[in-house]
Amino acid sequence: MDVKQYAESIAKKAKKTTRQLSSLTTDIKNKALLKTAQLLDKNRQLILQENQKDLENAEKKGYSKALLDRLALNDKRIDQMIQVLEDVASLPDPVGEIINMWTRPNGLKVGQMRVPLGVILIIYEARPNVTIEAASLCMKSSNAVILKGGSETINSNRILVDIIKQACRETCFPEDAVMFVDTTDRSVVNELLKLEGLIDVAIPRGGESLIRAVAENSRIPVIKHYKGVCNLYIDDEADMEKALNIAYNAKVQRPSVCNAIENLVVNKKIADKFLPEIAYYYGKAGVEMRCDEYSYNLLINHPKAKDTEIVPAKEEDYYEEFLDLIIAVKVVEDLDEAIDFIEKYGSHHSDAIVTENYTKGMKFIQQVDSAAVYINASTRFTDGNEFGLGAEMGISTDKIHARGPMALKELTIPKFIVFGNGQLRENVGIPKDEEEVKIDTQACNL
Amino acid sequence: MDVKQYAESIAKKAKKTTRQLSSLTTDIKNKALLKTAQLLDKNRQLILQENQKDLENAEKKGYSKALLDRLALNDKRIDQMIQVLEDVASLPDPVGEIINMWTRPNGLKVGQMRVPLGVILIIYEARPNVTIEAASLCMKSSNAVILKGGSETINSNRILVDIIKQACRETCFPEDAVMFVDTTDRSVVNELLKLEGLIDVAIPRGGESLIRAVAENSRIPVIKHYKGVCNLYIDDEADMEKALNIAYNAKVQRPSVCNAIENLVVNKKIADKFLPEIAYYYGKAGVEMRCDEYSYNLLINHPKAKDTEIVPAKEEDYYEEFLDLIIAVKVVEDLDEAIDFIEKYGSHHSDAIVTENYTKGMKFIQQVDSAAVYINASTRFTDGNEFGLGAEMGISTDKIHARGPMALKELTIPKFIVFGNGQLRENVGIPKDEEEVKIDTQACNL
Repeated sequence: MDVKQYAESIAKKAKKTTRQLSSLTTDIKNKALLKTAQLLDKNRQLILQENQKDLENAEKKGYSKALLDRLALNDKRIDQMIQVLEDVASLPDPVGEIINMWTRPNGLKVGQMRVPLGVILIIYEARPNVTIEAASLCMKSSNAVILKGGSETINSNRILVDIIKQACRETCFPEDAVMFVDTTDRSVVNELLKLEGLIDVAIPRGGESLIRAVAENSRIPVIKHYKGVCNLYIDDEADMEKALNIAYNAKVQRPSVCNAIENLVVNKKIADKFLPEIAYYYGKAGVEMRCDEYSYNLLINHPKAKDTEIVPAKEEDYYEEFLDLIIAVKVVEDLDEAIDFIEKYGSHHSDAIVTENYTKGMKFIQQVDSAAVYINASTRFTDGNEFGLGAEMGISTDKIHARGPMALKELTIPKFIVFGNGQLRENVGIPKDEEEVKIDTQACNL
Repeated sequence: MDVKQYAESIAKKAKKTTRQLSSLTTDIKNKALLKTAQLLDKNRQLILQENQKDLENAEKKGYSKALLDRLALNDKRIDQMIQVLEDVASLPDPVGEIINMWTRPNGLKVGQMRVPLGVILIIYEARPNVTIEAASLCMKSSNAVILKGGSETINSNRILVDIIKQACRETCFPEDAVMFVDTTDRSVVNELLKLEGLIDVAIPRGGESLIRAVAENSRIPVIKHYKGVCNLYIDDEADMEKALNIAYNAKVQRPSVCNAIENLVVNKKIADKFLPEIAYYYGKAGVEMRCDEYSYNLLINHPKAKDTEIVPAKEEDYYEEFLDLIIAVKVVEDLDEAIDFIEKYGSHHSDAIVTENYTKGMKFIQQVDSAAVYINASTRFTDGNEFGLGAEMGISTDKIHARGPMALKELTIPKFIVFGNGQLRENVGIPKDEEEVKIDTQACNL
C-alpha cells in the first residue's frame, strides 16, 4: 500500500470518531481504561513474548545496553502501566468543564467549556509504556490518538494497542479512536505531518533531532520541548544545607533526564564556601565539573576537590544538555547576572534558585522565563506525576498553548458557549410594516 | 538597509524589552495607555493630516470606496481609539495572576502563573485603529509587539505609533516594546516570520489570502482564523419569532463581517412555514437565496418570495464566505443531519441553533466543534467587546492555545511556579559519611 494513502486512511479513521468521542460519558471512558488494565494483567505472557521479539531484533542490530533497558518489559513495568491506567481513570474528566460563565448586559450568558483538541499524533521512541500513557490520556480527554512508536518496539506496541482495542470493543468505546501506525517505514511520519485538516496537533517525544525533524516538516501545530538545559542558582543568602542537597539531587539522582541540571550558577559571595563542598560530593558521585575561570582557580588545587575532575569550561558547555555526570559551573556577581545567564544559555525548561531571601526569590520566580521556576527545591520535580497531574503527555517549552508538563487539561481547549433568548446585534430584527431596512455596510471588524 | 537586517534589528529591539515588561507594574502600564489616549486627543489635527496623505495615495491608486472608507480617520474614529485605550486600561491585568496552586504530599507548593507570551508580531490590513487596539492589548499584557500594517495606511500608522512612543517615554514604559515596521516592502514580513528565536507568535488579521500566506511561510507559531462560514440551524421546535429575527439579524445587520451567517439550515418539519416568511424579509433587504432542491421548489413560485431572488445552490456555495447579501439554504431531516452539514461545510467559527427543546440545544452546544456555539442568539455577537473581554486581538479558529476572540488572557500563558523548602526527588541528598552513592541510570521519562 502506498504510504500517503496509508497515512490518510489512519487519520481519517481517527477523525471519524471525534464527534462520538466528544459526547462519551466519563463512565464509558473509565470502563475502557480499567478494562485495558485488566486485559494487560491477563495477557502478561503474551506481552512479554512480543517484547522478547523486539529485544532479540535490537540485540541483533547491536543496540546499546541503555536502549535495550528502555525497551525491555517485565512484570514490574507491566504493573506500572496498569497503575497509569488506574490513575488516569481516577482523575477528573476535563471534557465539558465550564471554566467560567458570565452574563452580559443584554442577558446573553457567555461561557467557556473545555472540549477535546480532536486528533492527536504522538511520535515517540523506545519505551513501550508511552503507548499506554499517551493512549490513556487521550482516551480520558476524548481525543483520538495516532500512535507512532519507534521501529525497535513495534511488536510490543502492536500487542499493547491490540489489547486497548479489545478493551474498547468490550466497553463500547470507539476502537478507531486509538490508531496504531503499524509500519517501520519512516516516511509515514512525513505524510501524517501533512494532514492538517485531519490531525489537530502533533506531539513529538524523544531526542532533539527527532523533535527538530517533526517541527520542521509539520504543517500541523507541534507542541514540543527540544531539550532541557536546566540551571540552578545558588544565591549568597542560600541555606548551605539546602544548596548542597539540591545541587546534588538535581545533578546526580538521575543524570540522564531532561529535568536534571546542566549548569550550576553560584554567587561569588558564597562561592568560596559552597563550591569546594559541592565539589567534594560531586567527586564522590563521579561528576565532572567544567568550570569558569574563577571556580577553576578555586577548585583545581583545593583539597576538598582532590578526587573531583575539574576542567576549564568552554562557552559551548553552557549551552549543552549533557544528560550525564557532567556539570558546567559559572560564578556570578549577583542575581541579575544569574538571570541574564539563565536566559542566555538555558532552554527555558526548569530553573531553580536556592535562597532564604524573599525578595530575590520572588524576583527569580517572576523574571526567569521558563516552563517551571523553583525556589528551594530540585528541578527534578518537573513531571506530570510529581506535580500531581497524573500521567503526562510530554513537556512543552513552547510559549503557546501549554508550558511545562502536559496532562489532561492541556489536551483540551475551551470553546465559547452562548445561551441566549433571542438576542440580536444592535437589536436589528425583521422590519415591522413600514420600517426601513437597515444594513450596516462596514467591513469586518477584524 | 538590507531587509533581513532590518527585520532582525526590529525583532531584537522588541525582544530586549521582554524582561523589563514582565515586571512592570499595572500602574505604569495603565499610565502609558491613558497618556496615549490624552496625546491622541491632543494631536487630532496631526493624525488627520497624516491620514489624508494615505487617502490621497489610495485615491491615486484607484482603490475601492470600501477600502477608502476603512482607512479613513475622523474625529469619531479617533474617539473610538481613545475609548479602546481607556477600556483596556480599566481591564484587570492578566500578568502574574496565579490561576491555581496546590500542595503536594511532600510539601511542595505547585502553581500556575500567567506570564506574557513575549514578542508578538501582528500583520494586518487597512484600518489604522488596529494599530491602537493591538498595541494597547500587548502593552497591558506585558508583551512586546511588532506592528506590520498595510502599505495603504503607513502614514496613519506611523503617526499613531509615534504618539504611543511619546506616551511611553513620558511614563517610563519601554518604548521599544512597540515596534513599527516602517516600510512598504512586503519581503520584510517573510524575514520576520523566520525569526523563531526572537518572535514568539504571529497573528495575521485580514483576508484569507493574507492569512494563508503567513501560515505557510512562518516558522513561528501562528494563531489565526481563515474565514467565517457561519451556520444557523432552525430546529422544528424553534420559536418562529426568534427564528425569523435571528436569521435576519445574522445575515442582514452587517453582511460583510466574518461572524455573519452564510448558510441557513432548516428542519424539514418547519421549512414550509419558516422559509416563505424569511424569504419575504430577505427579499425586502435584497438578500439572494441560493437554495437546495427542496427549498427551491418551495420558494420559486411562492407569493411570499415573489420579490426575492431565488436561485438553485451549487455544492460549492455551502463552502463559500459570501460576505454579502447572499445566503445558501439547506433543508435537513433532523438535528444530526444539521450537525453533519455544519461540520462538513462550516469553518468552525460561530454556529447557532434556534430551538425551544432543551435536549437538542444542549446536544448542539456539545457536538458542534466551533470556536463559538450559540443557542437562540445571533452569531453576530462573536467579538471580544460583545463577549465582554474588552478589545480583541483577533479571532482564532485554531484548535490550540485559544478558540474564538483573543483578548488579554489569550496573550498570556501560565508557567509553573514551585515553592519548596529543600525538597529532593526520591529524597536523594548528599551522602552521609559512609553512605553509598546512588545514581539512577534510567533514561529520560519522556
